[in-house]
Amino acid sequence: MEIGSVITELSGLVDRELVRVCDRYLSGPAPLVKAMRYSLEAGGKRIRPGLVLLTSDLFGGSRQAALIPAAAIEMVHTFSLIHDDLPAMDNDDFRRGRPTNHKVFGEATAILAGDGLLAFAFELIAKHYPGSAEQATALIRELAEATGPGGMTGGQVLDMTFGESGRDLAAVEKIHALKTAALIRAAVRMGAISAGVADLSAVSEYGLNLGLAFQVVDDYLDQTSTQGDLGKRTGKDGDANKPNYALVAGGTQAAYDRAKALVEAAKAALTDFGPSAEPLRQIADLVLTRKK
Amino acid sequence: MEIGSVITELSGLVDRELVRVCDRYLSGPAPLVKAMRYSLEAGGKRIRPGLVLLTSDLFGGSRQAALIPAAAIEMVHTFSLIHDDLPAMDNDDFRRGRPTNHKVFGEATAILAGDGLLAFAFELIAKHYPGSAEQATALIRELAEATGPGGMTGGQVLDMTFGESGRDLAAVEKIHALKTAALIRAAVRMGAISAGVADLSAVSEYGLNLGLAFQVVDDYLDQTSTQGDLGKRTGKDGDANKPNYALVAGGTQAAYDRAKALVEAAKAALTDFGPSAEPLRQIADLVLTRKK
Repeated sequence: MEIGSVITELSGLVDRELVRVCDRYLSGPAPLVKAMRYSLEAGGKRIRPGLVLLTSDLFGGSRQAALIPAAAIEMVHTFSLIHDDLPAMDNDDFRRGRPTNHKVFGEATAILAGDGLLAFAFELIAKHYPGSAEQATALIRELAEATGPGGMTGGQVLDMTFGESGRDLAAVEKIHALKTAALIRAAVRMGAISAGVADLSAVSEYGLNLGLAFQVVDDYLDQTSTQGDLGKRTGKDGDANKPNYALVAGGTQAAYDRAKALVEAAKAALTDFGPSAEPLRQIADLVLTRKK
Repeated sequence: MEIGSVITELSGLVDRELVRVCDRYLSGPAPLVKAMRYSLEAGGKRIRPGLVLLTSDLFGGSRQAALIPAAAIEMVHTFSLIHDDLPAMDNDDFRRGRPTNHKVFGEATAILAGDGLLAFAFELIAKHYPGSAEQATALIRELAEATGPGGMTGGQVLDMTFGESGRDLAAVEKIHALKTAALIRAAVRMGAISAGVADLSAVSEYGLNLGLAFQVVDDYLDQTSTQGDLGKRTGKDGDANKPNYALVAGGTQAAYDRAKALVEAAKAALTDFGPSAEPLRQIADLVLTRKK
């Protein structure tokens, strides 16, 4: 199957699973549930849950089981988008082509919608993951570590304070590793855990490099695309002291070269897997060529 | 032992456990870790973790094991205080006698410090709870449910929108149940789970009534105390459309009577336990007579 069709199929699966778990398990005051679902069901590339599913596939895991951690990681990703967009943070008005959560529901509800999605993600795994308790605990550990102060949340703090203590590439890559790559690495690890695999080293290496590449390309696109293309404000990294790889490395060509090397490293980590890893390799190639 | 001494001992244990787990397991950018620890280590009554430990004691559980869920629930409580105090929410400047998190570290870092504490709480249980994976999963389920849209986060949304659709006692009690009692009920359930107990009905009944009583007394104290007594702004519920039991019920006497009945109901739930439940009964009495 063409990778484009695979991605379309996976994002459809994920979209339906998100609706299913919200319909079935999400309860709470109507304005909160509405705000949570507004951002969760706004679409998006569904990269992280797609990686959970494809990595589970790679090891022969059950799709049905992997859908729960897939839904949970997309909730965590959505939580981070809602909080990052807040006026106190990046102050963005558009996301995925729609007004951001706080523009629609107000700042207080947006903060709580993010909080609610984060807690609900862990509840979903702890309560509804169909595999063993050992697997559920391992999945939660991965997701929590990648989300917390040593992962995404820490990366956002460094992102906001970038420039205060130097603007070099090492600082940029540290931020990319925490803010973006930690959760993408967690996605492939969670897929492998769901499939019952113990040795996570190869997929971790793949996920880390893919995550770093993804963010370098994001930085590159911020410089070269329009809001119409991306569904969010672009060129914004030039407004402020932002850790944009292209800006710090001195140009979009340098960023492209770096992303290409990272994609190669991601694919190299999968050498031992043969043809069954083809979808993951093609996803890596797509990260490099994507336009949005 | 006098209940006052028991509480002093327990809060000392909890304080030391919080420092221990942060020293040992909390890593991330220094400004974030500092903001997280500022609020976490600001003291407070440590009611929720104390209830985890005492309920574990009641069933002969291991104190050492119960300290991990105890620390985790205090992290979740602290996360909720940091977010509730934000300008977009209750906009409070003082908490536990000190400037609130956002007054010291700024709004963005305060939001992220809360997020970080929430994720770290789940990481702590998933990674470091010394009991079985089944217990760890059950503990996370309790904590996540009590925190999420069907618990505390939902309660905060209802709190903010109180008055928009009527100001009656039923609405006030619904908010108290979600915003305060859910996490206190979770505390005793987590203590029982940590001790390996399956039948959580009696302690759940105790926890729910205790939690409701706790919030009614909070409302009562808001009307009758000063900032010097409580370490936070008082009389604030009169400023706005706040779900304060004393205000809605028509006076502090009505609130006191309701709190007394709830405390009796909490104690009645423990009838079958005999003398071993004495500390939990005395805690209930203390909730009624507390001045801060």
